[in-house]
Amino acid sequence: MKQSKSVDYQAIIDEVYAEVKSLDLQGKVADYIPELAKVSSEKYGICLVDNQGNTFTAGDAEEPFSIQSISKVFTLTMVFHAFKSKLWHRVNVEPSGNPFNSIAQLEYENGIPRNPFMNAGALVITDALISKFENAKEKIATFISDIAGCTNIQINGEVLMSEMDHASRNRAVAYFLKAHQNIENENIENLIQTYIYHCSMEMNCVDLARSFSFFADQGYSRYCDRQILTPSQTKRLNALMLTCGFYDESGEFAFRVGLPGKSGVGGGIAAVLPGKFSIAVWSPELNTKGNSLRGIKTLELITDKISFSLF
Amino acid sequence: MKQSKSVDYQAIIDEVYAEVKSLDLQGKVADYIPELAKVSSEKYGICLVDNQGNTFTAGDAEEPFSIQSISKVFTLTMVFHAFKSKLWHRVNVEPSGNPFNSIAQLEYENGIPRNPFMNAGALVITDALISKFENAKEKIATFISDIAGCTNIQINGEVLMSEMDHASRNRAVAYFLKAHQNIENENIENLIQTYIYHCSMEMNCVDLARSFSFFADQGYSRYCDRQILTPSQTKRLNALMLTCGFYDESGEFAFRVGLPGKSGVGGGIAAVLPGKFSIAVWSPELNTKGNSLRGIKTLELITDKISFSLF
Amino acid sequence: MKQSKSVDYQAIIDEVYAEVKSLDLQGKVADYIPELAKVSSEKYGICLVDNQGNTFTAGDAEEPFSIQSISKVFTLTMVFHAFKSKLWHRVNVEPSGNPFNSIAQLEYENGIPRNPFMNAGALVITDALISKFENAKEKIATFISDIAGCTNIQINGEVLMSEMDHASRNRAVAYFLKAHQNIENENIENLIQTYIYHCSMEMNCVDLARSFSFFADQGYSRYCDRQILTPSQTKRLNALMLTCGFYDESGEFAFRVGLPGKSGVGGGIAAVLPGKFSIAVWSPELNTKGNSLRGIKTLELITDKISFSLF
Amino acid sequence: MKQSKSVDYQAIIDEVYAEVKSLDLQGKVADYIPELAKVSSEKYGICLVDNQGNTFTAGDAEEPFSIQSISKVFTLTMVFHAFKSKLWHRVNVEPSGNPFNSIAQLEYENGIPRNPFMNAGALVITDALISKFENAKEKIATFISDIAGCTNIQINGEVLMSEMDHASRNRAVAYFLKAHQNIENENIENLIQTYIYHCSMEMNCVDLARSFSFFADQGYSRYCDRQILTPSQTKRLNALMLTCGFYDESGEFAFRVGLPGKSGVGGGIAAVLPGKFSIAVWSPELNTKGNSLRGIKTLELITDKISFSLF
Repeated sequence: MKQSKSVDYQAIIDEVYAEVKSLDLQGKVADYIPELAKVSSEKYGICLVDNQGNTFTAGDAEEPFSIQSISKVFTLTMVFHAFKSKLWHRVNVEPSGNPFNSIAQLEYENGIPRNPFMNAGALVITDALISKFENAKEKIATFISDIAGCTNIQINGEVLMSEMDHASRNRAVAYFLKAHQNIENENIENLIQTYIYHCSMEMNCVDLARSFSFFADQGYSRYCDRQILTPSQTKRLNALMLTCGFYDESGEFAFRVGLPGKSGVGGGIAAVLPGKFSIAVWSPELNTKGNSLRGIKTLELITDKISFSLF
Repeated sequence: MKQSKSVDYQAIIDEVYAEVKSLDLQGKVADYIPELAKVSSEKYGICLVDNQGNTFTAGDAEEPFSIQSISKVFTLTMVFHAFKSKLWHRVNVEPSGNPFNSIAQLEYENGIPRNPFMNAGALVITDALISKFENAKEKIATFISDIAGCTNIQINGEVLMSEMDHASRNRAVAYFLKAHQNIENENIENLIQTYIYHCSMEMNCVDLARSFSFFADQGYSRYCDRQILTPSQTKRLNALMLTCGFYDESGEFAFRVGLPGKSGVGGGIAAVLPGKFSIAVWSPELNTKGNSLRGIKTLELITDKISFSLF
Repeated sequence: MKQSKSVDYQAIIDEVYAEVKSLDLQGKVADYIPELAKVSSEKYGICLVDNQGNTFTAGDAEEPFSIQSISKVFTLTMVFHAFKSKLWHRVNVEPSGNPFNSIAQLEYENGIPRNPFMNAGALVITDALISKFENAKEKIATFISDIAGCTNIQINGEVLMSEMDHASRNRAVAYFLKAHQNIENENIENLIQTYIYHCSMEMNCVDLARSFSFFADQGYSRYCDRQILTPSQTKRLNALMLTCGFYDESGEFAFRVGLPGKSGVGGGIAAVLPGKFSIAVWSPELNTKGNSLRGIKTLELITDKISFSLF
Repeated sequence: MKQSKSVDYQAIIDEVYAEVKSLDLQGKVADYIPELAKVSSEKYGICLVDNQGNTFTAGDAEEPFSIQSISKVFTLTMVFHAFKSKLWHRVNVEPSGNPFNSIAQLEYENGIPRNPFMNAGALVITDALISKFENAKEKIATFISDIAGCTNIQINGEVLMSEMDHASRNRAVAYFLKAHQNIENENIENLIQTYIYHCSMEMNCVDLARSFSFFADQGYSRYCDRQILTPSQTKRLNALMLTCGFYDESGEFAFRVGLPGKSGVGGGIAAVLPGKFSIAVWSPELNTKGNSLRGIKTLELITDKISFSLF
């Protein structure tokens, strides 16, 4: 791997920002819950944080948005130490090849979700969190605020209420897991609420890039000055994000971009180049797989312009 | 990523070789064709080739074995320049989540194979090779011999005949692709024969590690002194091996080992750490997913022992 | 069709009863809820009611048992007049080929159950009943008691409670239907309770044979002296029972027995030979498809011994 | 079942013929092979043959058409005696719920076709015929000619050649069965040819109604004065046609029409009312399930107008 001593990240980001803006990318803002559909499709922000702690931004990088499924990375991190001992019986680590909310595969595979980023897998993780912490919601909020640099991350109450009203499918998945003895806690409504709670978090690109920085730095977060995961755990979670982080487009993303990362239907994407930097992009228009159109294009162009890569 | 100036690869390989030998790993030698079942389950070899051209070996590293599906990486490389323009309409780059010879997924997805390492996808690639070269078989043999260092790689005629006699399932897949207009050449028997021809190649661990060295060196092979792929193509093919190289155990392999690679039912595995080295392991006993038990364990232990990693 | 003026039904039933008893049929009493598992596997009763109102019995024909899925025929009958106008948008009439509680097919077919005898389909029917009647449970109990001859059919409270405690899978199906806008009522718990309520009914073979008599007599029930369905509706519901009444063994049952009917996991089967008779058999040991082993054998032998048949 | 001494079949057929013609039913002539697409979509014929040997016709009842899948009933009849002893290990008798040429289900169910009317099942039956008879093709032609009343039934050579050129999918199915050891004969091309040979037969409605008469008369054909099947076998094959005769629309057909029968993509349908009559209808425009639109409407109206029915 060639090493570039000094890369001008700001110049690259500015260039890519302008180039992507000029493209006429036509997607669709998520509308499965009314609140998400209200966001302006024009929004577009980027933030890159390098391992030296420098922050580079472009566009709407400081405007909060709904992180949605990106939150699954945080909850997984919080129980990841249990993966070797307990969780791997309950959740697999294989790419799915099916939409994130599919229930058919879960039936064929006896209630063991394919990976922790499918809705089913994330519900199992949230269930493990509820078992572990008395006040799981509070713990999640604190953890995310911490790794984002002690900012005060908040949930969007409108999104939360809207999602609770449109959660039949997640309830179906949760009861299906319960039927397969893969949910420990009796109170399914509390599980759904906790799950939606963390999906309803709002962060901006700067928060998000900082909160992902420990994935680029062998588990160490400079923003809360703490080792979040061991290097070995970090490596594994990065591998998981690379193979499973983008729904059923994960292969395509690895092929075109080649960075571990996670997307959300709010239009956010967080990704890392281990040893180098973490990055967050936000733009609400999604492609048919549910990933931000501009977000993916942004990361593809950036990885083309820098002289080093994962592979 | 931490950099280790001098790693004693030989010591690591010797240590891991001894450790894996001492484990009582119980698998099953491939028996879907009689010839493969004849190989001694005790065989076990390792070869690592670093980017400086040093070769490190242990065990049966110079005994030839049937490379089987590893050959799919070579045929894909031979037509990879066409991927952006033509092939991506015909083969996807997503992990499959299904056994390598599944036909159900192919039906649901209208005759477009999930990736070039599924049997269906590899048949499409072989078909593209037949369209491109008058004598595809000869070209494949020459290409593999070249990148392995001008050795004379040969097919095992017994294996080839045996596979031709047990190719009903591959014929079914080929005709199914044909029914979806995803095979260009009329002669299905020639397609099957060419496909089985490259799967029946025999290589030893040294050949194999050398033949994969260009994946570790941005597309350049020191063994034939030639740029085989551009750096960008190399990166993409590495990403593809990471997400799809180990059948429906690819996620698990990425999670535990974290190297791009490809396995074959002959018990071989070839993998790379980009920027550092390529490696080949061979041991015929397979796990239930069709991957070499000792091979995977070997790579897991080696990546644990070296101080740098992909992620 | 040959007509037999006077068939000695009692002799046939006695003969078959003895023959089946002498066979060593080994099945498995339903144990998905603890209460059902308590029933003695030795129980075995038969009751045939001809269109002249004669009643013929053998064995434990007067001992009540849990009718389970047989109740789905009654609830369907209660809303069947709506099938042409409304319900056929919400439930299909095709055999399923999948286990009765499968959710995968429901996903592939966009939340439209294959037929009203799948759990999913029966939940839609129960939902339609709740929309139609203020007190759906009472109405169902009254209807069944009426057509069984004004006896007082009752639910088994132990079974009901036990099923409520093991209803995660049905809740999953209900929420999945809700997510596809195929449940009208908001209160899913009430839906589940009403569904389990009718499945927990207890009837004996005599009640059951009588309650099915209108299917053999063009929709007219002599036991409550009322036209329950029109002849055309009766014909259609009979066709539906023939193609879908025995879970994923419906084809086999039609092939071997050739009578419209419906089975339940409590070991009961009710069936009819249109124009001739209705019949109920009960024996708790089930085959792998969930149908009463002795029940199916009984009906097969009886149809062999009588000189007329459906086809 | 009410008995009507004298039904005026001719009047009913004429009435229904006029009524169906007046409806503006819009379907699509089969075009998967060019030859079938050439047939005029205006064609429409009916022939009913009662158990007394009377023949009633309307429209293009004497114009030959391609019987296609209806031929599967004839080949099945020819080996049906072996069903109890041998064939039931190789073919199931369950409705499929999937398109007739699906291969996914075959994979999930280990190479055992759901029923003998799926393409896969019919290929197994044809294979059994080839094992049984030295010259299977000749035997099939003779058998069909016999039961149709010693007319000389012929294949359409254009259709046969056209189908051979478009048989990739059937070849895929055949090789897939072979891979599961569910084809006995080595020569797959001969199997495909024999299968296409019987599908390419041409018959008119009169031939077809007569050839089906033994299904209405407990296995006895008055047209060749021979018992073709025993009454018990006849009953079973009728049950099979009722549950599986109309592809994945079999439930709907049983629900709306309620007669055992078999359709073909040439637009033909043959059906029987056991004890009463056999009937053939032909009209090339198909619905989305591959069944003749006018054919199904015709049978629905006829069963509405006659006072007796199966159920």
